[in-house]
Amino acid sequence: MDAFQDHYADNVAHCYGCGRLNEHGHRIKTCWEGDEAVTRFTPEPYHTAVPGFVYGGLIASLVDCHSTGAAAAAMYRAAGRDFDSAPAFRFVTGSLHVDFLKPTPMGELELRGRIADIQGRKVIVETEVLTAGVVTARGRVVAVRMPEDFGAERAR
Amino acid sequence: MDAFQDHYADNVAHCYGCGRLNEHGHRIKTCWEGDEAVTRFTPEPYHTAVPGFVYGGLIASLVDCHSTGAAAAAMYRAAGRDFDSAPAFRFVTGSLHVDFLKPTPMGELELRGRIADIQGRKVIVETEVLTAGVVTARGRVVAVRMPEDFGAERAR
Repeated sequence: MDAFQDHYADNVAHCYGCGRLNEHGHRIKTCWEGDEAVTRFTPEPYHTAVPGFVYGGLIASLVDCHSTGAAAAAMYRAAGRDFDSAPAFRFVTGSLHVDFLKPTPMGELELRGRIADIQGRKVIVETEVLTAGVVTARGRVVAVRMPEDFGAERAR
Repeated sequence: MDAFQDHYADNVAHCYGCGRLNEHGHRIKTCWEGDEAVTRFTPEPYHTAVPGFVYGGLIASLVDCHSTGAAAAAMYRAAGRDFDSAPAFRFVTGSLHVDFLKPTPMGELELRGRIADIQGRKVIVETEVLTAGVVTARGRVVAVRMPEDFGAERAR
């Protein structure tokens, strides 16, 4: 399925969390399911907190990239534009907040995000993290639109 | 130098961020420098956001484990006990907040944390993330004391 991250321009596609050009990274994929931005990701066996439970830093990392992707997708949707139209919308994280509600058992994670607000260049994304249908964490990201030339010089 | 994480019991030493027994993980090391808990960590070349800058999810992950380590160390210090005395203090993350103030250039990161408050089983840790002496992010973690039997069954 076509994911938000498949449309990132090459100069912003090296992120360890979501860049399709980062061969060491998580390469998460996020898609719309109705009004929800959904990411599914299966941790590696070594992504543990204590044995049997998922590392919280991984959960925070997934929430982060999932949310910046959702923010960009929301802007395209609000503008009635497709992903490959110019100018590109790409977001960085202004702030990341995660509440860990309970330990997250190892297994496929599902992140379900909704766009809480759009405020000029900022998009607020609120996400639930589920495993086996149980919400174990909640995330809130303030994503900020990246200047169009951000990273361009280093990628040349 | 002797780090907080060197004293974690074997059944809680598999964390991807800070477990000395997780051979795939970051294995961060945190030490007191006066009243500050300090972690230094050099990202791998692939821990990028856009090329030349550090992945925010890594920064969040480091803040997380650095803070739970600092919380445990603060409890030992408050009790006037050494790290290997019983019962063990070990913390999980209740909430993690990171403000990304500016892009973080690749290079050694320094996390400097202080104990903002101790409230029963909760410890609040506030951390600055610096690179080349410049603060690029700030973290705030509410760490919660882990039940003594947490993870024990799975590690047997």
